[in-house]
Amino acid sequence: MKAPSIVFASCVLALLGPLAHSAAQPSAETIAATLRDKALHDPVAWDFVSELTTRIGPRPAGSAAERAAAEWSARKLEALGFENVHIESFPMTAWVRGAERAEIVAPSPQPLSAVSLGGAPATAPGGVEGEVVLFSTLDELMAAAPGSLAGKIAMVTFHMPRTQDGSGYGTAVLARSGGPAEAAKRGAVGFLLRSLATGGHRFPHAGATRYVDGRVPIPAFAVSEPDADQIERLTGLGEKVRVRLTSAATLVPNATSYNVIGEIRGTDRASEVIVLGAHLDSWDTGTGAIDDAAGCAIVTAAARLAKEAPRKPQRTLRVVLYGSEEVSQPSDTLLGGRTYLEKRKAEIGSHVLAGESDFGAGRVYSVSLPAGAANSAFGRTLQRLMAPIGVISSSQPPGNGGADVAPLAAAGVPVFLLNQDGTHYFDYHHTADDTLDKVNPEELAQNVAAWVTLAWLAADSDVDFRALAGAAPSTR
Amino acid sequence: MKAPSIVFASCVLALLGPLAHSAAQPSAETIAATLRDKALHDPVAWDFVSELTTRIGPRPAGSAAERAAAEWSARKLEALGFENVHIESFPMTAWVRGAERAEIVAPSPQPLSAVSLGGAPATAPGGVEGEVVLFSTLDELMAAAPGSLAGKIAMVTFHMPRTQDGSGYGTAVLARSGGPAEAAKRGAVGFLLRSLATGGHRFPHAGATRYVDGRVPIPAFAVSEPDADQIERLTGLGEKVRVRLTSAATLVPNATSYNVIGEIRGTDRASEVIVLGAHLDSWDTGTGAIDDAAGCAIVTAAARLAKEAPRKPQRTLRVVLYGSEEVSQPSDTLLGGRTYLEKRKAEIGSHVLAGESDFGAGRVYSVSLPAGAANSAFGRTLQRLMAPIGVISSSQPPGNGGADVAPLAAAGVPVFLLNQDGTHYFDYHHTADDTLDKVNPEELAQNVAAWVTLAWLAADSDVDFRALAGAAPSTR
Repeated sequence: MKAPSIVFASCVLALLGPLAHSAAQPSAETIAATLRDKALHDPVAWDFVSELTTRIGPRPAGSAAERAAAEWSARKLEALGFENVHIESFPMTAWVRGAERAEIVAPSPQPLSAVSLGGAPATAPGGVEGEVVLFSTLDELMAAAPGSLAGKIAMVTFHMPRTQDGSGYGTAVLARSGGPAEAAKRGAVGFLLRSLATGGHRFPHAGATRYVDGRVPIPAFAVSEPDADQIERLTGLGEKVRVRLTSAATLVPNATSYNVIGEIRGTDRASEVIVLGAHLDSWDTGTGAIDDAAGCAIVTAAARLAKEAPRKPQRTLRVVLYGSEEVSQPSDTLLGGRTYLEKRKAEIGSHVLAGESDFGAGRVYSVSLPAGAANSAFGRTLQRLMAPIGVISSSQPPGNGGADVAPLAAAGVPVFLLNQDGTHYFDYHHTADDTLDKVNPEELAQNVAAWVTLAWLAADSDVDFRALAGAAPSTR
Repeated sequence: MKAPSIVFASCVLALLGPLAHSAAQPSAETIAATLRDKALHDPVAWDFVSELTTRIGPRPAGSAAERAAAEWSARKLEALGFENVHIESFPMTAWVRGAERAEIVAPSPQPLSAVSLGGAPATAPGGVEGEVVLFSTLDELMAAAPGSLAGKIAMVTFHMPRTQDGSGYGTAVLARSGGPAEAAKRGAVGFLLRSLATGGHRFPHAGATRYVDGRVPIPAFAVSEPDADQIERLTGLGEKVRVRLTSAATLVPNATSYNVIGEIRGTDRASEVIVLGAHLDSWDTGTGAIDDAAGCAIVTAAARLAKEAPRKPQRTLRVVLYGSEEVSQPSDTLLGGRTYLEKRKAEIGSHVLAGESDFGAGRVYSVSLPAGAANSAFGRTLQRLMAPIGVISSSQPPGNGGADVAPLAAAGVPVFLLNQDGTHYFDYHHTADDTLDKVNPEELAQNVAAWVTLAWLAADSDVDFRALAGAAPSTR
């Protein structure tokens, strides 16, 4: 005997819903609610993340595996009913890890669990060796006098705090990007970083470091948390710790990377594009399940669900699975994202909204909308729809929307963020342990539900997010 | 105003305690209770496990590091006031891991997180390659027809269950010891084992495999749980999975290993010896914190606490830190333990009791005493003393008492077990992740408390545990 209530509720929504079409067909809000609930039991995202990480495994930018992942993804998008599926390739310089080793040579020889930072150079075949000098922060290293690190290996031991929103990483990553160059300026022959990590396991956490004049000046490694503790304890026992670093990393200047694109075409506003982004490349150590096969799976599954609506949306949903996110310069816009923008500068006005999923598969707990949108009719409708899946409105602005859509944001495209619970993200991020078993299927499905809700509502509307930014600021 | 009660309680204990000496001095039970409580705040065990694993790191049997660990331990025992400290060296054949790699070569190349099993041979420089054939158990592999695995790589995918008492390992380890030889018999060119593991992380779990006619017939690797899942999933997708195994492992026939021995000498029964054992060697991948620096620390700290008693015990407490536990043949008695016994065959009757700590640093939850002891006056006193630290009397017999004291047990020496909670032991056991941070200082201290309680009570008594075994069986 629930049917009459549902009909009544639908009528009320149709009358009240600010985005409703007509009483003859379900409102955008009603459809969004249906898609949201379908998403919670939709197998597409799990199948995507499972098959991509299983069949291809690691997908370093510019590698044959990244190409295989792009080709697999394009076939998958076609099989899922996406339109205009194509791959946009672009040139880049790939950094390729070689045989590498970090080891304590004195006071007592023992291996370190460590990985070369992305972009860091090879050593001579015998490696570089030096006494380790500890700094608790990058600032402390930068306070060291010129020449004071001559012949030494500088190490930043900052313990990255666990945070839900990833803000711990935002602070700690400065030592990874800037540390090698700052150490080299002061004479260091090598650089060590306590992994930007919260897991406590013996996995080093990879990641890119900054080029200066086109290169990273000295060999640079991240060591796992237990290994960093070991070096700190040895120093605490009064020992001078000597470390040897060996790396055969290479730069491949004529590599190719790929953006994979597919669309769910809109109807009367088909030329207006909403970008749902994520990145296909991964670090070479794990299989990139949480970073970022999960994101690719989430945006693909969310856009695909729009095909299950009783009508097509007005605007076009465009899934963009970017290449080469991981190896770009941290201080720079990213390769796949910049390439996407450069091809579309003339049509940037047609991009009405963009977002990216690149923070694992933890639950979405809040949404950051473009300026002015949170308190608009659109924002209030969205909040009603998001409440049942535990998503609140964030008081934080969406920033650049994510690494790959940052160039769009810089070009004036309104962006949003679906903020995920990253409490455990940095337990696995950029490690060999980033594998499928770290993705929770229920949390993954909740992400798809949040994405399809926002995507459908925005696509089936005529809201001008650029114009909302000019309206009166929120009083909340 | 508590002092009178304490005096009263002590008098009652002195009157009632079955092991009491005279009213003029504290009873064995009173002293044991005091030492037990001191142990909970005693820094010796933590300092031992921290310094050994930090200064020396991994200590593979027969290596220079194992020698350094033996020398460090002997100095430590002397510094702690042990008597008759000495190192007993013995010859052995060391197995040394070389450069090694396991990788999926088809359908799509990707590395595996894997380690060669101890004892497994080197491959040709280019490795061995074959299609993987999956078996869910060793029994299933043994049901394969002769020749049916010609040119293949056999893999046992048994998922070891998590258990508190380690019984999951006892079942699963049969595939590690017997798998390579059984696979080779059927024509396999290589063997893979899903790690004997419960952690779910991407650490392969090392361990020895069985020699047949003096050698392991084919290359054999353990792969991490996520990698085993990956191979199973690829197979489930209908793919034929080809794997290449490469190893440069070597056997060093003229290596040396070491038992380190130190005593707290007894008084009127000083020739009667209680052995408190653990092992100094570790696998090469981690720093052997839980396996078995923790055990060495526990038995050392427990015996050392006896020096804080108001009198010396009657019997001698002998700490034996064995060498080469890890690499001995699983079907065999172990190198350090066998060597210890062989030097003492003539005096074996003087060994009144033996036990070993080799199951990490998880809390002790029960005690298994030699046959007949649980319901003796000794057993009842021990149960009273153990209750406050959460240790009950086990209904299980002590078996062989542990790998290194098994030769003593086989020679008729009564043995005991202080059963530890191993729920998380196999998350780390034999992996690179077996590092100091996996030892909980409070749980470590509780172990010391349990060990000193039992050790003191047995040492300060004249109980003949061999004779108790002949008494009427327990009615419990």
